[in-house]
Amino acid sequence: MVQLLFAELDAGIAKLWAEARQGRFWRHVEEHGCSPALYRLTMLQIFQYTRHNSINQAVAAFRADPEDLSLLRFVYDHAREELGHEQLVLHDLRSVGLLDEGAAELPPLPATDALINYLYGVALREGPLARLGYSYWAESVYEQVTPLLGRVRESLALNERDLRFFNAHSAIDARHSLQVRSALERAVKTRAQADSVRRVALTSLWLTVQLLEQAFAAVHAAPEGG
Amino acid sequence: MVQLLFAELDAGIAKLWAEARQGRFWRHVEEHGCSPALYRLTMLQIFQYTRHNSINQAVAAFRADPEDLSLLRFVYDHAREELGHEQLVLHDLRSVGLLDEGAAELPPLPATDALINYLYGVALREGPLARLGYSYWAESVYEQVTPLLGRVRESLALNERDLRFFNAHSAIDARHSLQVRSALERAVKTRAQADSVRRVALTSLWLTVQLLEQAFAAVHAAPEGG
Amino acid sequence: MVQLLFAELDAGIAKLWAEARQGRFWRHVEEHGCSPALYRLTMLQIFQYTRHNSINQAVAAFRADPEDLSLLRFVYDHAREELGHEQLVLHDLRSVGLLDEGAAELPPLPATDALINYLYGVALREGPLARLGYSYWAESVYEQVTPLLGRVRESLALNERDLRFFNAHSAIDARHSLQVRSALERAVKTRAQADSVRRVALTSLWLTVQLLEQAFAAVHAAPEGG
Amino acid sequence: MVQLLFAELDAGIAKLWAEARQGRFWRHVEEHGCSPALYRLTMLQIFQYTRHNSINQAVAAFRADPEDLSLLRFVYDHAREELGHEQLVLHDLRSVGLLDEGAAELPPLPATDALINYLYGVALREGPLARLGYSYWAESVYEQVTPLLGRVRESLALNERDLRFFNAHSAIDARHSLQVRSALERAVKTRAQADSVRRVALTSLWLTVQLLEQAFAAVHAAPEGG
Repeated sequence: MVQLLFAELDAGIAKLWAEARQGRFWRHVEEHGCSPALYRLTMLQIFQYTRHNSINQAVAAFRADPEDLSLLRFVYDHAREELGHEQLVLHDLRSVGLLDEGAAELPPLPATDALINYLYGVALREGPLARLGYSYWAESVYEQVTPLLGRVRESLALNERDLRFFNAHSAIDARHSLQVRSALERAVKTRAQADSVRRVALTSLWLTVQLLEQAFAAVHAAPEGG
Repeated sequence: MVQLLFAELDAGIAKLWAEARQGRFWRHVEEHGCSPALYRLTMLQIFQYTRHNSINQAVAAFRADPEDLSLLRFVYDHAREELGHEQLVLHDLRSVGLLDEGAAELPPLPATDALINYLYGVALREGPLARLGYSYWAESVYEQVTPLLGRVRESLALNERDLRFFNAHSAIDARHSLQVRSALERAVKTRAQADSVRRVALTSLWLTVQLLEQAFAAVHAAPEGG
Repeated sequence: MVQLLFAELDAGIAKLWAEARQGRFWRHVEEHGCSPALYRLTMLQIFQYTRHNSINQAVAAFRADPEDLSLLRFVYDHAREELGHEQLVLHDLRSVGLLDEGAAELPPLPATDALINYLYGVALREGPLARLGYSYWAESVYEQVTPLLGRVRESLALNERDLRFFNAHSAIDARHSLQVRSALERAVKTRAQADSVRRVALTSLWLTVQLLEQAFAAVHAAPEGG
Repeated sequence: MVQLLFAELDAGIAKLWAEARQGRFWRHVEEHGCSPALYRLTMLQIFQYTRHNSINQAVAAFRADPEDLSLLRFVYDHAREELGHEQLVLHDLRSVGLLDEGAAELPPLPATDALINYLYGVALREGPLARLGYSYWAESVYEQVTPLLGRVRESLALNERDLRFFNAHSAIDARHSLQVRSALERAVKTRAQADSVRRVALTSLWLTVQLLEQAFAAVHAAPEGG
């Protein structure tokens, strides 16, 4: 069951990343680099959802079976590791002079807001197994975005020390990714469980790609044909 | 405060409807009518989220002030009125021979899944006031979609009795819409409250428009340039 | 299954009421009547939990099956009917000059606090079926307490108009009680469901009896042998 | 504020332990030792609530401020450390031949059920600060029960290796207790916060003492004067 799930996940996720690469955000950055305004707004969206990731991971325990000790251990360890990562985002913005007063309190874009509350809904209603769908792609995001991130660094002349958030993540990525796979291997036993993991993976990745598109649209104004 | 909120809501909502009318779903239906397959898939998405609307309305009470009797009364009455509307969607599909076995169990599209769990997240975290942002536009959706619905009816040769869901809603729309406005007038007292209402309105409408776009893409295949 | 459940419920509930009648609160009121201080503190506890009853009823929908329309209808109707009953408690205290400033903000006694949060825990974790265990005995409480209430009225010289809370409840009791039985008859299908209803019934009634004992102990001081 | 809270907590907790020592469970064990049946039923109650302690700790994050990193860190670390302690209870029962088939599935006594769902209600409604009231006394429970535990060991001829649960806890007690105090020192800033901590401390300890009384009553039958 779980091998089939991995194959389905990988196919669905690859398709969404392919769509992302055809999107306006990605193509713009590849072709024109990333403006400070676009970098700032995108990082602020990442700040917004990142500060909820450890919490919505922890509350997923609400719908765990108390007997499922290994899944609960994953939940708590993962919540603990995610804690405070949003501070790295703020650091990175501050480091390049893009953290203006009040920026952290700006309302999230619709896709960001949708992602945040979607994950709370999933956590409280469906629990830690379904939420693994989100972790599955999120823990391997950096291999997808590395080339784009290179363009961002280049266009903004960023140093290593301006990129604490991405560096912290890429460092723990490989390990996390294995933990998520092994958690899925232990936990997924039915078709319905596999379906919920896949659904959450695709919905959360789709929302994340939309977040990029909305950040682009908000900065580079005219939606469609602009 | 609330008059400013209404003005902001109306402007933001109008902008999203304008974008919807430029979308592929809307233009396709206006130009080519609605195929049975597109009608079926769209109605199944509406079925999916509608069956949660009365529940996520009720659980918003979790974050209400027990002293706020008029807001709680609105919540319970509204939950009660929404109950079972998804059965009308199934009726309407069955009525035109489009409710195949297992259709109601199909997984929701990403935007539908996002909308469902987003509203649970908002309800449990932010409560009934924020959720009014969703009701604000949803209760007046039919004036927006009436022309499009006309095209749908025409192309599928639907009778009045095939449209129980939309007819039931348009009948209670005017009254509900006034109730939502008056609930907002009583409850919104701070800028932060107004912001949460507006955020939920725009995010939930954006997700609903995306639901249409994804239904179109799923039926009429080739995403982008198709 | 449900007939067996009713028999078990009735036996368990009768046993707890018998214990209540042997308790210090009950015996004191029977023998010495009810002092204004004891009436005031007991009514304030009733105020405390009553203001949460409609909310914890509504949020139980979180764990309902969206297909279970008749159970959801019960939940919403019941939440609606319970709404605002705590205002009757305040009225009744005010009516006899016992609602001193700040009284409604006094912290609940431990048993009252336990009852309030217990019911939220049950509602959010187990849903509306389990919570029916609470309704089962609560809707027929007045036949149990009528004689005691007579002693209270007598010793405090209360009029009919000072007893709005109890009168309102006794008026809707018979009807509610039938609704609860019929909801249980429709919904209880397994031994595990029956067990959860019984457990919640006995725990919530036990907490309510303890609330009376703690009110007595708080007013008539010296716990044990006092 | 927090020093006053500690003084109030210590006084309130000491009073409840004094009442516990006057209770039937405590006096019986002191005078007659602990029968296998009483040990078994009491340990099964401890098993029941312990399996939820790490989960209700984790879900308390739902009501934390995402900015309160040190409180969230405490929550996750504490949830992690509590995980699986109920397995030690089962071990200890098995070790002395008292873990009969199906014992772990027996329904909890009312006080146990009340404690479990009370803590979920508090966690989800009031969050991690209020739940610290429970940790405050729970982390120093062993100094209170050590003499009684001595009587239990004696009467059942238990070895060190039969007491893994209590030994594990007493080992981490001193450290935890300091962590809880320091979490409270950082977090409690208002009278309302202090009140919620105190309320949860007293209610949860009262329920725990009642759990002992109900275990005694269930095993040694006739309630009151029996």
